[in-house]
Amino acid sequence: MYGDTTRRDALIGMGAAAGLAMLPGAATLAQGAGDRKLGYAIVGLGSYATRQIMPAFAQCRNARIAALVSGTPEKLARYGAEYGVPATHHYNYQTFERLADNRDVDIVYVVLPVAMHAEYSIRASKAGKHVMCEKPMAVSSAECQSMIDAAKAAGKKLMIGYRSRFQPHNVAAIDLCRKQVVGPTRMIRTAHGFSIQPDQWRLDRKMSGGGSMMDIGIYSLQAARYLSGEEPVEVMATESTDRRDPRFATVEDRVDFTLRFPSGVLASCISSYSSPHNEARVIGTDGYIELDPATPYQGQRLRVRVKGETTEPAIDTSGPSQFAAQLDHLAQCILTNRTPLVPGEEGLRDIRIIEAVYRSMNEGRRVALA
Amino acid sequence: MYGDTTRRDALIGMGAAAGLAMLPGAATLAQGAGDRKLGYAIVGLGSYATRQIMPAFAQCRNARIAALVSGTPEKLARYGAEYGVPATHHYNYQTFERLADNRDVDIVYVVLPVAMHAEYSIRASKAGKHVMCEKPMAVSSAECQSMIDAAKAAGKKLMIGYRSRFQPHNVAAIDLCRKQVVGPTRMIRTAHGFSIQPDQWRLDRKMSGGGSMMDIGIYSLQAARYLSGEEPVEVMATESTDRRDPRFATVEDRVDFTLRFPSGVLASCISSYSSPHNEARVIGTDGYIELDPATPYQGQRLRVRVKGETTEPAIDTSGPSQFAAQLDHLAQCILTNRTPLVPGEEGLRDIRIIEAVYRSMNEGRRVALA
Repeated sequence: MYGDTTRRDALIGMGAAAGLAMLPGAATLAQGAGDRKLGYAIVGLGSYATRQIMPAFAQCRNARIAALVSGTPEKLARYGAEYGVPATHHYNYQTFERLADNRDVDIVYVVLPVAMHAEYSIRASKAGKHVMCEKPMAVSSAECQSMIDAAKAAGKKLMIGYRSRFQPHNVAAIDLCRKQVVGPTRMIRTAHGFSIQPDQWRLDRKMSGGGSMMDIGIYSLQAARYLSGEEPVEVMATESTDRRDPRFATVEDRVDFTLRFPSGVLASCISSYSSPHNEARVIGTDGYIELDPATPYQGQRLRVRVKGETTEPAIDTSGPSQFAAQLDHLAQCILTNRTPLVPGEEGLRDIRIIEAVYRSMNEGRRVALA
Repeated sequence: MYGDTTRRDALIGMGAAAGLAMLPGAATLAQGAGDRKLGYAIVGLGSYATRQIMPAFAQCRNARIAALVSGTPEKLARYGAEYGVPATHHYNYQTFERLADNRDVDIVYVVLPVAMHAEYSIRASKAGKHVMCEKPMAVSSAECQSMIDAAKAAGKKLMIGYRSRFQPHNVAAIDLCRKQVVGPTRMIRTAHGFSIQPDQWRLDRKMSGGGSMMDIGIYSLQAARYLSGEEPVEVMATESTDRRDPRFATVEDRVDFTLRFPSGVLASCISSYSSPHNEARVIGTDGYIELDPATPYQGQRLRVRVKGETTEPAIDTSGPSQFAAQLDHLAQCILTNRTPLVPGEEGLRDIRIIEAVYRSMNEGRRVALA
């Protein structure tokens, strides 16, 4: 079985050539959306917002920076000047509600520490704005639900910033998995981690809601879910944290967690705040599909190994970056009235699973997922 | 920290150059052993014995084939002719005890289905012979203990056929781990598996004692132990077996198991009878040491990635193969009266951990190891 090399090669070729065009409905959405640019208010001018997100607007077809929100006047002045956002469109956390009156702002992008996601997403929904919120969505599934409820009550959209779903190598890998080019999936192995620097909000549980699992392990969790195309039914997890390390006074370091999917696929996942990892491998009966690195800001590589031969499908990366594609996607969903690929419900699913991971590692037992 | 690239490079270079010489005491043992060749009786003339082990004697300094044991007269005739073993040195399972009277036979190598390991190892010890037994050592820790007891009562040695401990890339990887060339170890990831063909003793629990975990998962378990240099204190495991697949009527297919070591290192291990895997990666704070493939009969590769740069240390493979080195090792231990690197107690340790893996996956909970 699976001996039809010609068909497989053809499929791999297709997957590669298709590139960004394989984004679910991306072309359709873009078409219906026309050229109108919706305005984003960027809430929180930290490193990720200023170095990754804001420069990406230059590539966007349907999104532009319309307003800035920060507690630091110097940042408002500096980035206002850099991106041409006038002082009338600068806000702080006390004047945040005035965004309601700014008709240039369609979407509020929450790029704050995790513990502030729910509050500012809900305040933005109440201000009548659509919301993009960074991942992890919030510190608890209850908070996630209240964010979903607030967006629904406002009749506005809510999307979570899962950039990898808009990254061409990851999109191509999903496609190759669905086409079973290495046979039916049997195992998934994915690991994400880095050696975290001390003295930052991520290491303060009150601000982050948790340790590596919330911050970087969520990439392993996401990869396992989008590469399998299934929802896990069971989780088993083990933690290892050196509490003498001052970085880990309140949050966990390493987590090894295993997800079982309905088809029988097992995903062996790693999350670490003390070792470098960034990879995902889908192992089928005949070989594997590998993203290594899988989810960096840039430089992903996709390899396919079937029956002892490794190929690296060419991926078209000439289109907009994952950051720009993500920004455009929400705008296009609003312009064409569609549900985003990664709505609030998707963020909630991850947080529910992360809560099960924590329960499993704390109680030393298998935890079933509803 | 760990920024001393020059020192690290030097260590990597050393590790590579040292090659087989790093085998614990190998040179010393070989020296003291002189040139005398001890005689092996090969028990069970299946594929592994005839294709891997028997051809390796040609490279041995202290070992030779002295006798053959098989239930199939045609095999005795064929391999007797091929290896110059006269009919006087052919045995079957009824005449096995007569090995006691054959002074050309020093060592009995048990290469039978796992369920027969204990019986024939014990019969060999009682016949006054040293024993080499294939892995997994036996179907239960109780059987392992009885094999150890029998060898001890006979005043003879017992070694388990862990060939990877004599394989240069694996030996070099162990050395690089001890020298912390990628910083202190934080995680280990290792996977072993293949798509098993139907209709063989490995798929009959009565003959094999278990499924993939016993047969191929044991390589992941061994790698985690010898690369960490520690004994696990805790195991957590998840199984996935499609019982509709006729291959898996009595044995398990996939097992994902996590070992926790006293230092806090976690080893994420995979065993599979339905997907191809053969790799081991030790992740330190600064990078990783990777064996990929890790434990095939030949073709291992060792890579070291530190601070974004990958190197492939040159390994001297001009010496005897892992099979020959293993055969010589037991002979040299006998000639110099030393304890083998992988005695019966080592086989027992693995079986105890495998029993804990089975308990964990069946009960869905963490299992502590004594």
